[in-house]
Amino acid sequence: MKQLLLIGIGPGNPRQITLEAVDALTRVQVFFVLDKGRVKDELLQLRKDILERYISHAHYRLVQVEDPYREGAASNYVGAVQAWHQQRATLYAHLIETELAEGECGAFLLWGEPTLYDSTLRILDLVKALGVGIELEVIPGISSVQALAARHRIPLNRIGEPLTLLPGRRLAEQARIDNLVVMLDGHCAFAALDDPQLWIYWGAYLGTGDEILIAGPLHAVRHQILELRAQARARKGWIMDTYLLRRPL
Amino acid sequence: MKQLLLIGIGPGNPRQITLEAVDALTRVQVFFVLDKGRVKDELLQLRKDILERYISHAHYRLVQVEDPYREGAASNYVGAVQAWHQQRATLYAHLIETELAEGECGAFLLWGEPTLYDSTLRILDLVKALGVGIELEVIPGISSVQALAARHRIPLNRIGEPLTLLPGRRLAEQARIDNLVVMLDGHCAFAALDDPQLWIYWGAYLGTGDEILIAGPLHAVRHQILELRAQARARKGWIMDTYLLRRPL
Repeated sequence: MKQLLLIGIGPGNPRQITLEAVDALTRVQVFFVLDKGRVKDELLQLRKDILERYISHAHYRLVQVEDPYREGAASNYVGAVQAWHQQRATLYAHLIETELAEGECGAFLLWGEPTLYDSTLRILDLVKALGVGIELEVIPGISSVQALAARHRIPLNRIGEPLTLLPGRRLAEQARIDNLVVMLDGHCAFAALDDPQLWIYWGAYLGTGDEILIAGPLHAVRHQILELRAQARARKGWIMDTYLLRRPL
Repeated sequence: MKQLLLIGIGPGNPRQITLEAVDALTRVQVFFVLDKGRVKDELLQLRKDILERYISHAHYRLVQVEDPYREGAASNYVGAVQAWHQQRATLYAHLIETELAEGECGAFLLWGEPTLYDSTLRILDLVKALGVGIELEVIPGISSVQALAARHRIPLNRIGEPLTLLPGRRLAEQARIDNLVVMLDGHCAFAALDDPQLWIYWGAYLGTGDEILIAGPLHAVRHQILELRAQARARKGWIMDTYLLRRPL
């Protein structure tokens, strides 16, 4: 059997990794690294730093692959993502068959939490369905949502209230926002909200030296966020950000 | 200034703690431990084990306090919790004033994630409002929700879908369940759901040697969960469990 670990490595601060994840790193012979576009050089280097920092032996290798291109503005979002997952699954299956020997242990290093708005686990289920024998193990990691709340020193939920997490493209349809965390919002959907009551707690590059934090009434800080976000993105070539929206009681 | 750290120590597995948390542990002079009822002996011992395991010096002390009793079945839930928080805030303020010297660093060791369904941060805001000068820092931890998803090897969300987390007492009012994580459900609200489509992924004592995992169609496994849960609770005197409910597409 081939083993595959999905290791959550936290949002970017190399100390925000668990000892369980460090233990897991040392078991791995092959690290698969898939990146896309402009983020790849810097994020690849950060992962290499993690490997160098925490693995004392030299018996591992890195397999780097260019991520398949995903259709940006498909009319059927879920269908487009599924097609892209299927493409990735074929690629992963090939990688696992050619790069990982029987009895070896491979791994994907995943930013944040592997089970939260990350498609790797879903793709590996497709790989299994293609007939590739793998034994999966998931190692949780600190998500950017947790880093956001910690750095703003705010509870994610209020007493007895639900907390909802969603991707940016689902924000506009929310009828009522009480405690809402938005992830993957490349289009700054928050800027279009017109509820004058809302507060926003926003953070980018959480846990890294480039971290930016802004909190305040949405109508008062939204332009500042848009501006700083655009500047940071232009400077670094990529941005990862998340935010909590809350209506005061 | 007095420093206070809220350190997330994960769901129970002592390796599911971050290096950032371990770094934080070594900065602390005073650990405040508040427990209630029957959980306290075992959970206290688990925390002591963490301190012994990760702190190599002996320059820290433990301050143990009995948690104020909370009214179980109040008609006004939020009001009752707020009154209990105010009571706790008075107690914490007293502890901080008498047990922590200027310039010292105190800490609360919190199971799971400090910002998720935990009241300590909220209570410390009340402590500040009482005029006690403290500088707060929050160290994220792996929540039981993450341990649950990892052990069941399932994504918490499906493609592009929202994920909602809520306490057990809010489950009955949910009009539609797609991806729902339920925490703090002492009354097994899942057992009363009658949607024949729902799947449940349940876990108790996640990350510990007593871990129990059950997954399947809710109608098929609910009795098994109720039975195992009651047995485990009777045997150990306490239980911590959480679950994900999902409707297949």
